[in-house]
This record gives sequence, structure tokens and C-alpha cells, in this order.
Amino acid sequence: MSDVRHGGPGASPDAPPADASPADAPPGAGLDPASLVPLLRPRSVALVGASNDPTRIGGRPLRYYRETGFAGAIYPINPNRAEVQSLRTWPDIAALPEAPDLVLVAIPAAGVVAVAEEAAAKGARSMVIFSSGFAEADAGDGRAMQERLAEIARTSGMRIAGPNCLGVFNAEIGHYCTFTASFDHGGFPKPGGIAIVSQSGAYGSHMATLAREKGLGTTYWVTTGNECDVQVADCIAFLADEPGVDVIACYIEGVADAARLTAALAYARRRRKPVVVMKVGRSSVGAEAAQSHTASLAGADRVYDTVFRRHGALRVETTEDMLDVAYACTRRILPTGRRLGIVTISGGGGVVLADAATAAGLEVPPMPADAQRRLKEILPFAATRNPVDITAQAFNDMSLVTTNVEMMLSEGGYDLIVNFFTSVPRSKVINARLRPAMQEAARRFPGRLQVMCMIATREMIEEYESDGYLVFEDPHRAVRALAGLCWFAEAFARPRPAPPPALPPDVLAAPERAVDERTAKRIVASAGIPVVEDRLVRTAGEAREAAALIGGPVALKIASPDIAHKTEVGGVALGLAGPDAAADAFTAMTARVAAAAPAARIEGALVSPMVTDGVECILGVTVDPAFGPVVLFGLGGIFVEVLKDVSMRVAPFGADEAMAMIREVKGFPLLDGARGRPKADVAALAEALARLSAFAAANAGRLGSLDINPLIVRPAGRGVVAVDALFVPRG
Amino acid sequence: MSDVRHGGPGASPDAPPADASPADAPPGAGLDPASLVPLLRPRSVALVGASNDPTRIGGRPLRYYRETGFAGAIYPINPNRAEVQSLRTWPDIAALPEAPDLVLVAIPAAGVVAVAEEAAAKGARSMVIFSSGFAEADAGDGRAMQERLAEIARTSGMRIAGPNCLGVFNAEIGHYCTFTASFDHGGFPKPGGIAIVSQSGAYGSHMATLAREKGLGTTYWVTTGNECDVQVADCIAFLADEPGVDVIACYIEGVADAARLTAALAYARRRRKPVVVMKVGRSSVGAEAAQSHTASLAGADRVYDTVFRRHGALRVETTEDMLDVAYACTRRILPTGRRLGIVTISGGGGVVLADAATAAGLEVPPMPADAQRRLKEILPFAATRNPVDITAQAFNDMSLVTTNVEMMLSEGGYDLIVNFFTSVPRSKVINARLRPAMQEAARRFPGRLQVMCMIATREMIEEYESDGYLVFEDPHRAVRALAGLCWFAEAFARPRPAPPPALPPDVLAAPERAVDERTAKRIVASAGIPVVEDRLVRTAGEAREAAALIGGPVALKIASPDIAHKTEVGGVALGLAGPDAAADAFTAMTARVAAAAPAARIEGALVSPMVTDGVECILGVTVDPAFGPVVLFGLGGIFVEVLKDVSMRVAPFGADEAMAMIREVKGFPLLDGARGRPKADVAALAEALARLSAFAAANAGRLGSLDINPLIVRPAGRGVVAVDALFVPRG
Repeated sequence: MSDVRHGGPGASPDAPPADASPADAPPGAGLDPASLVPLLRPRSVALVGASNDPTRIGGRPLRYYRETGFAGAIYPINPNRAEVQSLRTWPDIAALPEAPDLVLVAIPAAGVVAVAEEAAAKGARSMVIFSSGFAEADAGDGRAMQERLAEIARTSGMRIAGPNCLGVFNAEIGHYCTFTASFDHGGFPKPGGIAIVSQSGAYGSHMATLAREKGLGTTYWVTTGNECDVQVADCIAFLADEPGVDVIACYIEGVADAARLTAALAYARRRRKPVVVMKVGRSSVGAEAAQSHTASLAGADRVYDTVFRRHGALRVETTEDMLDVAYACTRRILPTGRRLGIVTISGGGGVVLADAATAAGLEVPPMPADAQRRLKEILPFAATRNPVDITAQAFNDMSLVTTNVEMMLSEGGYDLIVNFFTSVPRSKVINARLRPAMQEAARRFPGRLQVMCMIATREMIEEYESDGYLVFEDPHRAVRALAGLCWFAEAFARPRPAPPPALPPDVLAAPERAVDERTAKRIVASAGIPVVEDRLVRTAGEAREAAALIGGPVALKIASPDIAHKTEVGGVALGLAGPDAAADAFTAMTARVAAAAPAARIEGALVSPMVTDGVECILGVTVDPAFGPVVLFGLGGIFVEVLKDVSMRVAPFGADEAMAMIREVKGFPLLDGARGRPKADVAALAEALARLSAFAAANAGRLGSLDINPLIVRPAGRGVVAVDALFVPRG
Repeated sequence: MSDVRHGGPGASPDAPPADASPADAPPGAGLDPASLVPLLRPRSVALVGASNDPTRIGGRPLRYYRETGFAGAIYPINPNRAEVQSLRTWPDIAALPEAPDLVLVAIPAAGVVAVAEEAAAKGARSMVIFSSGFAEADAGDGRAMQERLAEIARTSGMRIAGPNCLGVFNAEIGHYCTFTASFDHGGFPKPGGIAIVSQSGAYGSHMATLAREKGLGTTYWVTTGNECDVQVADCIAFLADEPGVDVIACYIEGVADAARLTAALAYARRRRKPVVVMKVGRSSVGAEAAQSHTASLAGADRVYDTVFRRHGALRVETTEDMLDVAYACTRRILPTGRRLGIVTISGGGGVVLADAATAAGLEVPPMPADAQRRLKEILPFAATRNPVDITAQAFNDMSLVTTNVEMMLSEGGYDLIVNFFTSVPRSKVINARLRPAMQEAARRFPGRLQVMCMIATREMIEEYESDGYLVFEDPHRAVRALAGLCWFAEAFARPRPAPPPALPPDVLAAPERAVDERTAKRIVASAGIPVVEDRLVRTAGEAREAAALIGGPVALKIASPDIAHKTEVGGVALGLAGPDAAADAFTAMTARVAAAAPAARIEGALVSPMVTDGVECILGVTVDPAFGPVVLFGLGGIFVEVLKDVSMRVAPFGADEAMAMIREVKGFPLLDGARGRPKADVAALAEALARLSAFAAANAGRLGSLDINPLIVRPAGRGVVAVDALFVPRG
């Protein structure tokens, strides 16, 4: 298991997020894709701890390099032997004839820092450190040694993968810099468009093995282990630039540098490179097992959801989904829409596919009536709507199959076609005629995604793949993979996000200690969020006067920097009908609060107008251990308290993201005119959320949390107004 | 695709549901398991339409019988040939030397009824009809012919599978009465504990092929097609009695006889026989494709959920889940709890498993501290909490692996163990030592479910299976299958459900035409559901008088049999402070309503006390096309209107099911004391729901719908009170 440092609060940048950048901008956030070239496409490799025993950690990579015929220079370093595995050795890095692109380290932890220093001095460009016993170890000076490695990387520019990793490979050039034993059975992976990046070495190896068994070509494979320098984010940015990479499949346990990750994801999106992510530690047990120690981190799992979604990466739950989507990406076709046409020889298969497609978010629209009529003419026994059930009878004249698929693509306008043929194509007699018909269908619509869903041999699968088909056995997995492609198509097509709003020049900073409601609201107002008018009164007479000035029913709330929860001490009175009621309430309230909270400094009370023509909402800011300030949104009352119906986003963001947040909550219909209400001013609400996010990002280091509760969203055109605000400074 | 008749409203029995029966009771609902013996274990088979061509529909089964060496008598019927496939023929059924157990029919539809009559006259005990062109056909007299077949079955007692089906098989006795071509590649299925029942022939064949490819033994396979007689329910009841059957896997598109299905499921549960169901047509497109024509049927998908859950059947979404759970059932061990112990050689694999297990509803509790300490002594490099990461180092001394698993089982008390070993056991060197260690672990805890999660060859899989392990490649699929076993264990252990309450002897019937609120409430009250006191007043003076008698604030509602939605015509006034307010409101309301609904007969108005000390709920009854009356429950206001937060059950049911319904809604905390409210009288609410369900079942033929809205649930001990009721008679 890798040991990953978690960025503390404040990791969120207060500049506009990276994905608002132009399409050709560099990734930013300290990412330097080209710096990973020596690690993943080295011309020379030195192996420190090179062993003569090809089954040992220090011997395996050497064996792999020799077996695959790696074309670069190999420099085994071993002061005790003249030769290892028939190759000449060097006594140390300094003695090498050149500065190597890559230094592999397979020696006990205690010696690693010295090697790194030596490598940096020699001018080596990258390192892979297998050795464990660093920050992941319970005791000893492992953490200090790892920090020193990070420092060497930082100061020298030499990129370091690991320590405590299983290495890297590049199957295209025979660069198998790893000690995984998974090649012993089944051989080396074949090159191909899938790239795997994994914090876990063993699980990364597991994924590569599965990919190999499924015949999926995997050129790049990187395990990052403890991530003293090279993080998953660095690998994503590097792979986003690689033209041979169709998809980046990532296994992530924790995030060391949230800004770097989001910048890398945004960069990959701008480069139209699909990123599929298994972020594990979703459950509390899983999070504990992933060494994410705090409960809040486990609770932050939803934040990851929002980050991946926002930056166009597809989060999947299972290894099968990850590899299925990755496989689908290797066709290099992103669908133009979600319209699925289903061709089936089993009515049952058609129903299963229709259900599965709908569950996966695809559409299954019917064929146009005219096309159905003509289809019925050529296939009288068929169900023509969609699913189109051509029945096994269609196999009597295969040209009808081709015609059917062509009609669906040309007249049905489907973006995707799944052909459900169960095991029937395994009949050699049938397949000898079926395959040419399907080849013809594929050839005429080369840009359209077509899938064969069948039980087939590996040989048949590869035949249909070479014809341009994706082949899946299971209908549900087929449509989930297609839905993944639609996800990327939509993410890549999304307009560039709106930048977060600029804060007013005279915006106030978040307080460093507890402040009273009035101050809190003044700070909130300085960020451009409307707050309710209020007047601080010190006597019953002043309360009467203020109520008279305001007119109409008023609210009275105790004013004290020492009382965070006013209701609990009887410090709130709502709907006071007029000046007299306000005066009476002041007298009663001050007595009540003095009794309930005798130590609190009472400054008086706030009088403000009642705002009753809107929907009560809650806006909040919390600080995520990895991602920094996160803005939350929910409707008031039962929605947040009972139903936990909230949406969230890492700050900052623009009004477009804010609008998406608003629409995400289940209670949204209440803002949208449900139950006969007027539609609420969601545009003003979105603006308030975006401003809050900009304020939160700018105050990342000072904020503990912030609640604006309630914020009243008035009918459309009438804006929003914050009625109360509570800051908790960072402790 | 099969054509399935849907039972109309009224299909729900008004007797106590079958699953309240004692464990040894017969299945009821017309189910006669023994009557399927001649169909699935025949001693003699006549083949009408037997063909000499072994690739034709009428020739394939004959070929299969000959190839498998079926031991029973085979009677090919063919008036035109003396021999088919080297077997002597008979000219017709009448000429046979005995009444056959089974008559297989593979001739065009037009001749089928005559054959069925002939077979019944001869005393044949069962039939399988491959022929299509019956109720599934758009035109012609197919439906009438199918009805005649049903009548023949009913009057003769001869069981008929089909028409329009792919047949049946019993792999144990070589009884392959089917024309599926799926045996051409891969051979016949091997016998084993999985039984497959499918309405769809082709999808049934697809599942059998997958099972065979995965090495899963499948003795019984039945496709029911149009179900003129033999339904999925009959097969479930038959298979529930078969000792060799470990699990019944069903593919269902629609339900012809809901009472029979629920009785069969209840019977299987009493016999402790797991039933896994893929009920398709969940999406509207899927439902259309499954020929379920009405939108309401598609909407009724949730009713299926509740039916399967209530009767202990596990509904799955995917074919993979179905076969995975079925496979897990073949170990014949039901876990005693949901506590999962994870053993892993990859930290990442442990995290993935912990996440997957939590998502699947399993628990991953830590090892006891003392056991962890001792484990650390023998495996110093291990993470000992759970997941227990023994790392690949443990493989240096395999006895440590055994000891570890034993400690987890004996001291951790886990009900389930998953060992995640990725592809490492593929090393012959390692496996030669690992397998004996794992055998030892399995041998010492034979009743505990243990899983190997690894990438392995078929040969290795079978070795570990013979040692008592379940073997899965994918962690998520492994734990989902285990969760399925837990589901069955819990379903089989549940106490017998409470019977629905008896209705009072003087209960009124549901009205056959629209009635006013007062009558509606009287009927509801007669079923034992408390209703609010009300007084019908005809003048403002009477309204004043009634309010005075009631005391406190009152509600006034227009009384008219012609007005269903009183609020819309201004016919409701709430919280009237006293007698004068009531009188004034009466005058204003009658004028208002007369203007808004001039044609309505106004009988006066109802005066009733305001009930404000409770939580507003909605109780409803709708009629499902397949299952008859269904009772709905939800909280008032936004919960039903905006959030669609309702639970439902087919009527009738007891208070235990009602309590489950109440706890199911997301808003349940509001009844359970959330936000400082007193706990509501959920016991009284459950009783009201159960009584409503008994009333609904007793009035299945008369009810269109019934709304009790609101029903106020008062604080615990103070009961419930229905404030309004609205009947819509069956149209």
C-alpha cells in the first residue's frame, strides 16, 4: 500500500481553475510532462542492486531488459561482481560512461538516499526506487529519508518514482523496469493504447495482468508508490501528450497535491484524452485501509466525485468497468450522442439491452415510422421499433442483416449500435456469411461505434475487432462502456467553464477569531452576497425605534461574539408585528440570554425586516483535508437536516458550476415552481454561490467553516438575501 | 419473445398470503409440483414432427436424445416415413404402444391443437410445443388456438410448456427436449445444482451457454414461452422440491398469474431454496419491448421489487450477477452473518475489497485487538486489522497463511473469508505449497464460506473448488455474490410474516360510484381506521353550533359527492378559531363553491376539529395490472409531491410488513423524533396500513383507487386519525 501525503487546507488555488485555460495552454500547477520522458522512454538505464539471480528483485528487471531486447544502454551497478547475468557491471554511478536517463534502485532503504545524491550529482534524469521502508513504515527514519529524496528531486530536477513502488514499464520499447512476477505466466504485455497509472504496485500489476489476459494492449504502466516526487497527476499530464495513448486508467488511494491533480485532469480534458479513475477508500473501512486516517477524509469521498466529474474524468467503481471503458476507448471514436440502436436475434436479449442502456443513461429511441415500414418489408418477421429483433431467420439472407444495420445508421440516426447475437456466430457455417455482412456494415459507417455482443472465442473476437467492432460478452457491460464513451464525448465538448467571479476590491478577509453575526454578515456582504439590513440596538427603546424605521414585521436576534447558536439560548424572536412587540421582545430576550449564557458579552440585539417571500436555502463552506475549501448548497429545513440533500464543489468556481450545484439537489423543484410557488431567483443564487466560492478560495488559510443559514431566495428577479452568517475560524 | 397474459385487477388473493403458511404446507394457488415430473423427468417421449434432418427443429431433439443415450422410450411420430434418424416411426399418437410421459411438438401452428387433443385423449402427461404463431403473432387465430391449448391442459391435466418456446432439458438423464443450437459448440451442459427457468428461449439458451462456459453444472433448464399452461411459477415450485437443485435462476418478462408467482416464491422460501430473478422490462423501452403495453405496467416495476423482496427472492440486474450468485449457491452454505474477513497480499486489493464489501452491504469489522497482537507476532510485516495484508512475504512459510486464516475464523468470528491473491498462485512453485495450506484452512472450517479471489486457469479454479472454495476473478463480483447468499440466509431465517388483520364483521364495501367525503370516511372507519369526527351542517347557524360543540379551532370542508378536489373550488377552510368564524366561513364557502362548481350538488359542509399534533402522512391504494391492489405510504407535503418518497406493498399484509414500509421512506426520521419532534405513533400507523391492505384486498374488484390524505400520526400512544378520504371506483 502506498503512503501518500495529503495536502493540508489551502491546497486549493485562488487563481481561476486550470480548466478555464485555453486549449493549448501548458498544464500548470508545476506539471512538466516532458520531464517524465527519461523515466518512461529512457535511452539508458543504470540498475543499482543488480542481481545475478533473475528471480530476485534486483535481478528481474535486468532479465526482462535482456529478454525483450531493450535497445538502450544497460548499466548494472554492483561493486561486488564483475558481471551479472552475463553483463559487465560498474562499481558505482560515478563510474558510468554517461549520465543515465534512468537509475533503478533495488537496495535496502538505508542506502537509497546516498544513491539518489550520487545519481543527481552524475546528472541522471530520473530514478525508480523499489525499496520500501520509507514513509509507509511505522517506525524508524523512513519518513525523514523520504523527505530528503523529495528534496533531491526538487533541487536537482531528477524525477523520482517511488519509493516503495513496483516500477514502470513501456511495452513498446521493452522497458520493463519492474520486479512484478506477473510476466512469469502469460508473458509480457503487448503494446497498445491503454496506459495504467497506479499508486498500488500489486493492484497495478493485477490490472495489467487482467488487461493482458483480455488481449488489451498496454504500452505504459506506472506505479507511483509513496510518491515522494512523481505523482499520479504527473503521469496523467505526461500521458495526455502521448499520441499513442488512447486512455489513461488510474488507481488512486489518496491525493498528495490536489491542485496538481485537478490541473492534470483539466489538461487531459483539453487534450481530449479520456481518464478513467478508480478512487478507492470510498468506505470508511476502505479509507482506513488506505491509510487515510481521519474520518473527515472518508467523508470527503463525495468531494472526489465532484472533482472528477467537474474535470471530465470518469470515476468507476470496479476493475471490470475500468478495463471495459478503457477497452472501448481504444476504438478512438467518441460518439456524437447517446442514441443507441439495438439489433438482436433474441427478443429477450433486446429487452435486457434496452433496460441496461436506460440504466446506463443511454437513449433507445424508436426507428422512424417510415423506416420501420420499409424494414418490415424486407424483414417481415422482425420487430422493427428498436430493439430491432431480426430473429435468427435473418441469417438465411445475410444481406438483410447489412441492410438492417445500414437503415438503422442512416435513417435511425443512431450514434451507437449493439448487435446481440449470443453464441450463434460460433457456428462456422453462419459466421462465414455473417462476418462479411458485418464487415460491410462497419465499412460504410467508419465513424460510428458498433458493438458485437456475443459469446465467442478469442480468435473470433479479434477478427471482429480487426473489422472495427468492439466485442463484449455481457450486454450490461457493453452499454456501460458505451456510456463511458458518451461521458468523455460530452466532457470534451463542454464549453470552457466560466471563471469564478472577481471579488470586490474592498472585500474583507475572513475573521481570525469568532465574530458576531453583524460582523459576519458585513464580511459576507463585502464579498458581494446581499445580506439583510439590520440595526444594532442596545435598549428596548432603540428596538422600538428600529422596528418603526424598518416598518412591517421584524426579527430580533441577540448580538454577541460569544454566542454561535442563538436559538439555543432563546436569542431569536421572529415575526414581531411592530415597534411595541420589538421593544417587549428585546427586554424578554436580554433577560433570557443573560440567564442562559451568563458569561457571554451581550452587545445588544439586531433588528431586521422579516423576509418571507422566498425559499430558505443553506450555503456553507467546509475545508476538505485534500482539496481545501468546499462550498455546500442545500435547501433549508428537512432537506439538509433529515434528507442530507446537499451538493458540493471545490472552491472556486463560476456561475455555471453553481447552477449545476443548484440543479443537483433533490429538492430543486421547490426552487423551480413546484407546488404552485413562483420560480425562485436561481440566477442570483448561483451568483451568490460563485462569489462565496471565490471568497472561500481567497481565505483558504483562515477559514474553518462558514454557514450562511438561511439565505432566502426570492422570486425570480428579486434576488437573494442572507439572513444569518456564522464563521468558524480555522482552529 | 414470449407473449404473456397479464392477470387483471383482482388477481391478488384476499386470503392470507401464502408465505404465512406453515413450513410443510403445500404451495397452494393451484401449484402442483409433482405434475411437472413427466415434463422434466419423462420415461417416454413422443416427437411429433420428428425429422430425419438432425439440423432441423424437428430433428435436433431426436439427435440429442440419441447422442446422450437417453434411457427412456423414444417415439418419433411421422406418418410419411418408416424411419427417422435410424429410429422406427409411428404414424400418430394414437398408434403408440403406451401413453407417453411427454409429447414434443415441432410442427406448424395450425396442426398443434389437433395434436394436443390427440395427446390428451391418449393420456399423455405433458407436452412441449416449439411451434410459434400463437398469441405472440400480430394477426390470425393464434390467440384463440392458444386459449384452446390452455383449455385442453386445464381439463385433461396434461401439462403444456409453450407454445413458442425453446423446450426443456434435464442434463442428468440426457433429456434434451430442445432445438437450441448452442450445444453445437461446446457440447451439452454438465449436470449440476443450477436450474434455469426462462420465459425467453433465446435468452435462456444464452444463460445456459454462459453457465456451461463457466463450468457451472445445470441439470434443469426450462423455457416457458407463451405460458399457455406451465408458467415460471410452476417451475419454481417443482424445482423447490428437487433435492439436487441448489438455486433457481429465473428470467421473467411478465407475470401471467401473480398469485401463483407469489405462492411459488413463498414455497421456495419455506423449502429454503434460493431463487434469483432477472425481471426485465424495467425501463419503459424495455417494457415496451417485452410487450407490456401499458405505461402503468412499466411504472409497476417497483411493485416487482417489493414482491421479490417480500418473498425472499433476490432480484438482480445483470446476467453476470445472476450466474455469480447461482454459482455461489452451489456451495450449499448459507452464511450465518455478514461479517467479512479479508486476507490479501496486496494492500490495494484489500482496499478495493473493503469498498466493494461495504457497497454490497457486508460488514468488515476489525480483528479483536488480542488476535491482532498475536497475528503481528507471527506475521510481523502484516497489516492485522482487516483487511489483513499478509503481503507476498507470507508465502515464504505457508503454515503462516493457514494460521492466519484460522485465527480470523476462530477469533475474528468472520462468517465469510475472501483471500485476494491476484495472479500469484499461478506460479507453480508457490501454488504447490499454497494449495495444501489453503486446503487445511478449508478443512478445519467446513461450514464457513471461503473464497479465492485470483486470476487463474480453469484447471486451478477447479482444484480450489474441489477443496471447498468459491473462486472469483473480480473482487466486486465476489462480494456481490456473497451478499446474495446473505440475502437468502436472512430471508430464510425471517419469522413467518404476521397475517393481515381480520376486517371487522360489519365492514362496509368500497363504493361502486363516487361518494362524498363523509361517506368515504365512514367506509374507511368501518375497516378499523380511525377517522376524524365530523358533523354535516347545512346552514351557517348549524356550522356555528357544531363548532361550539366541538370546541377549539375547527376545519370546514364542502360536502358534495360531485367534488373530488375540494381545495380547487375553495371548498376547504382550516383553523377557524371558533363558532363565529365557522359560521362566517360557511357562508363565504358555499357562495364560492356555488360559483366555481355550479353543477355540483352541495349537501352542506363538514365541521371537524383541527388535528395539529402530528405528522401528516398519505396512505393510498392503487391497482396494479399484474398484482392487483397495492398500498402506498408516504409523508405529506413535499415528500410525496416533490420527492416521490413513497413505499408500497401488494395487499394484503400484516403489521410487520407495514412497519417495514414505514421505515423505508427517506422521511422516516420525521416520524422518529427528528428536529425535536416527539416520536410519532408508528405502531398505530402500521396497524392502519395493514387494515387498509386487508380492506383493499377484500375490495379488489371494486376499487379504482383510494387516498387517505392526510392521515395524521399523533405522538406515540395517541394513535392516528384520517382527516380526508377519497374513493375512485373501478372504472
